[in-house]
Amino acid sequence: MSMMDIINKKRLGHELSDEDLEASFLGYYRGTVPDYQMSALLMAICLKGMTEEEVFKLTDIFIQSGEMLDLSAVDGVTVDKHSTGGVGDKTTLIVASIVASLGVKVPKMSGRGLGHTGGTIDKLESIPGFRIDLNREEFIRQLNKVGFAIISQTAHLAPLDKKVYALRDVTGTVESIPLIASSIMSKKIASGADKIVIDVKVGKGALLKNQEEALEISRLMKKIGERYGKEVDTMITYMDIPLGTSIGNALEVLEVMKILSNEENNYLVALSKALASKMVQLGLNIPIDEASRKVDESLKSGKAYQKFMEMVEAQGGNIAGLRVSAYTKDIVSTKKGHIINMDAYRFGKLSLDLGGGRKTKEDKIDPRVGIVLKKKIGDDVNIGDVLCTLYTKEEGYEPKEDITDYYEFEDNYTPIENIEEVNPF
Amino acid sequence: MSMMDIINKKRLGHELSDEDLEASFLGYYRGTVPDYQMSALLMAICLKGMTEEEVFKLTDIFIQSGEMLDLSAVDGVTVDKHSTGGVGDKTTLIVASIVASLGVKVPKMSGRGLGHTGGTIDKLESIPGFRIDLNREEFIRQLNKVGFAIISQTAHLAPLDKKVYALRDVTGTVESIPLIASSIMSKKIASGADKIVIDVKVGKGALLKNQEEALEISRLMKKIGERYGKEVDTMITYMDIPLGTSIGNALEVLEVMKILSNEENNYLVALSKALASKMVQLGLNIPIDEASRKVDESLKSGKAYQKFMEMVEAQGGNIAGLRVSAYTKDIVSTKKGHIINMDAYRFGKLSLDLGGGRKTKEDKIDPRVGIVLKKKIGDDVNIGDVLCTLYTKEEGYEPKEDITDYYEFEDNYTPIENIEEVNPF
Repeated sequence: MSMMDIINKKRLGHELSDEDLEASFLGYYRGTVPDYQMSALLMAICLKGMTEEEVFKLTDIFIQSGEMLDLSAVDGVTVDKHSTGGVGDKTTLIVASIVASLGVKVPKMSGRGLGHTGGTIDKLESIPGFRIDLNREEFIRQLNKVGFAIISQTAHLAPLDKKVYALRDVTGTVESIPLIASSIMSKKIASGADKIVIDVKVGKGALLKNQEEALEISRLMKKIGERYGKEVDTMITYMDIPLGTSIGNALEVLEVMKILSNEENNYLVALSKALASKMVQLGLNIPIDEASRKVDESLKSGKAYQKFMEMVEAQGGNIAGLRVSAYTKDIVSTKKGHIINMDAYRFGKLSLDLGGGRKTKEDKIDPRVGIVLKKKIGDDVNIGDVLCTLYTKEEGYEPKEDITDYYEFEDNYTPIENIEEVNPF
Repeated sequence: MSMMDIINKKRLGHELSDEDLEASFLGYYRGTVPDYQMSALLMAICLKGMTEEEVFKLTDIFIQSGEMLDLSAVDGVTVDKHSTGGVGDKTTLIVASIVASLGVKVPKMSGRGLGHTGGTIDKLESIPGFRIDLNREEFIRQLNKVGFAIISQTAHLAPLDKKVYALRDVTGTVESIPLIASSIMSKKIASGADKIVIDVKVGKGALLKNQEEALEISRLMKKIGERYGKEVDTMITYMDIPLGTSIGNALEVLEVMKILSNEENNYLVALSKALASKMVQLGLNIPIDEASRKVDESLKSGKAYQKFMEMVEAQGGNIAGLRVSAYTKDIVSTKKGHIINMDAYRFGKLSLDLGGGRKTKEDKIDPRVGIVLKKKIGDDVNIGDVLCTLYTKEEGYEPKEDITDYYEFEDNYTPIENIEEVNPF
């Protein structure tokens, strides 16, 4: 069947055979199928969907396009975690430190940031000396010794998924449950961990708009996991506010250290604990309440903090060398009222503008800049109150717009449920 | 709004604004929107549709991308005709000869063939000396003198439609009522005739699958016409068999001459008469029965034949120089039975294989080759009967497959209605 026939078949809503999926996606990988045909097929998939069998096959094609990381030399159970990321999202560093401190191995591959969202690898690179390029032997050795290692995502894992994602990203074909599921799961399965916890984000800023979609993708990802003998659990979270109080690389590492030292108690902490508990539940094969208690203990006892420091040291990082900018600017409110929402996207853009992110892949990040939020949802604000502090590259930075507009104010405030966890089964 | 936002808007089923359509389609024309984004948008349009306002705007963008032919210097009413074309489709030559003989001006721009279907221009070029490149003044002069002129479609009319169609053709995005309607109507409106008759084909081999779709596109094309003050009428025809008895360029010109000499009476003749009657009805503003009587008279009296010859002579053609190949091969049936269907596509491919068409735009056509069908739907055939005669480039041509397989045989035959005309209003 030609690519044209395959596109037409999907446009008409029919199921693609294994051969169809191989011809189209492997053809795209090899360069015999052009971008403009693949984007038409992807749009047809977005609008006509895929059967489970199609999703299984597509995931497998993505996985087979690269290597599978062999973690059999790691002692004990390995548990990986996936988040779609977001502005100020530093959960990986918090969660992995907690989980590893409880004896569960956390082999983590992370990405760099692009656009308004940051990447875990960029945050770690704000620590002088930190090596994100451990080779396979070093990675496994550290997992056995420290229980926790983070390296940069290699191009060898599911490279076809990477190519397809780059096209989806510029053709309005990102929002598709089968495509999201196969993309996430192919990378996670290729990464080699025994068990996987996935943070499924729902809401205005997320790819999934409602709980039905979140439940559907959860079910699908679990089924994909089953095919590869991987236990998968998901956590559905509702989020479109900045996570925690800091945005910017060194600032976020400092925030992680604060949280691991029990100095904070906010949505980010609750989310991190919930994710960590799921991972411990899977890793130690214990009930969720027991896992949850262990997570609390690890934080309170300082074990999680210690584990983070161990990991940093093992990867050559000198935490004493971490620096934030000396140039700060307080932003004061031009409005009075009760904060009911914050625009995560605009804060992400502001951080980018300060030099804390990349507009193109080639941009260099300044790890010292960023934003520290002083007011959060639920706070009452008067005109002149400090809303946030900017850490800037140089003295005298002036924001291009009124940052008060990033906040939504209302007089009649009813608290919103910040975190909700749904177990679909 | 960025192209990404526009694609997402259509993917979610929302109406695109005039600005959205300009940004995306003019951007594509200017090369700032890449193929892979346009094909994603086209697929979203295929699956989510377009409102009437969107179709009007898109048609206008197509028209404005090029020139509009000014036919105001032509005396009297001009009527154009559109067919989607097909294997052996020579209706244009027959119909225009009849209509012009009755005093209605027929300014015709035609295309070349590509793949398994032929083009009117290629057929005319089998006449030695025939000029398809009249300039604007010659075109108008001939219309005023002869009433009928055919020239090659210029690149100046709706060039953006051409670019978009080329992309649709390779991305499985051809089958869309709004896209088909805006494509056809933009070319027809830019061609400048006062009134337009459109042959809307329905059936297995056609772009439109059923009568509902045909009625929908008819209604839409009439409305587009109204916007530009053009009276549009449509004729819905059911066809996926070769039209007439000849396939191949010189052979088809000979068939046209035979039909205009009243030597044939088949579906092609009936279809041509019906189309001609509609055009005469519009052009002379008379009832359809009267138009139909006039068409019959024109054929019987030889006026239509004469008009064809006048047109050929006016454009420099020497009809006496028309040649078909001297090498022929009779194809005999390997089966016995009653013919209930013929595969137009495979006959088109065979003609292509004989050298009568183009596989790529650069191929040179041999005007002398082709196929003459000796048996038609409804005929009883015995093993050894001649099904058709091939006119080949050289002696000793052997077909690669059993041509009997192009025919479908059945014992229990009920005649099918070959032509049906539906007036949607």
